[in-house]
Amino acid sequence: MVKINLAEKFNLFNDYWSPRVVGELNGQYVKLAKFKGEFIWHSHANEDELFFVVKGKLKIEFRDKVVNLEEGEFYIVPKGVEHKPSADEEAHIMLLEPKSTEQTGGIESDLLVDKQPWI
Amino acid sequence: MVKINLAEKFNLFNDYWSPRVVGELNGQYVKLAKFKGEFIWHSHANEDELFFVVKGKLKIEFRDKVVNLEEGEFYIVPKGVEHKPSADEEAHIMLLEPKSTEQTGGIESDLLVDKQPWI
Repeated sequence: MVKINLAEKFNLFNDYWSPRVVGELNGQYVKLAKFKGEFIWHSHANEDELFFVVKGKLKIEFRDKVVNLEEGEFYIVPKGVEHKPSADEEAHIMLLEPKSTEQTGGIESDLLVDKQPWI
Repeated sequence: MVKINLAEKFNLFNDYWSPRVVGELNGQYVKLAKFKGEFIWHSHANEDELFFVVKGKLKIEFRDKVVNLEEGEFYIVPKGVEHKPSADEEAHIMLLEPKSTEQTGGIESDLLVDKQPWI
């Protein structure tokens, strides 16, 4: 194990909606992702998912409300709850979720990436 | 669930080595703590533990090395590994660990708190 510097890791990639894994603990992955534009509506049947804003702003739409997050804020989306993340400008996000989590919750999408590599 | 603003939460308490719970996901707690001075050597037999530096600097001593963390850096201490956190100046730390985690891994200490409340 080595220490992880978030800013250094974010400098290693530039594509959006393509999470990288930077840590693993207790069956969970810590991931970093750059968001810009809109993701798709989806849910994760068995996994809670934490979104922490490292840089920029993140909007998470739910069927009954909208949550707007700024730097230094996080939100935990409970399992089974539909959500749609989006960001008007580039946002740097730290995610925490079980290793089993599928990016779109099983929904086909052009945004679905084949792999979420370690960096 | 509401969004969590780390700075607002850190303003709610001032005691050191007394973690507060600010989130729960997948059997893990997200905790915030202020560190200053030295904690004790301990380990957690069954729990990996993540230390993320929100503000200040954190030193984590291991039996074979020392890890120095700055703001925006994290380190995952694997289960069973002895460690001793310390901070020369006040540091604001976000912890991630299973709900079952005991603060000192079962070791008696004046630093052991009775309860880690939600805030």
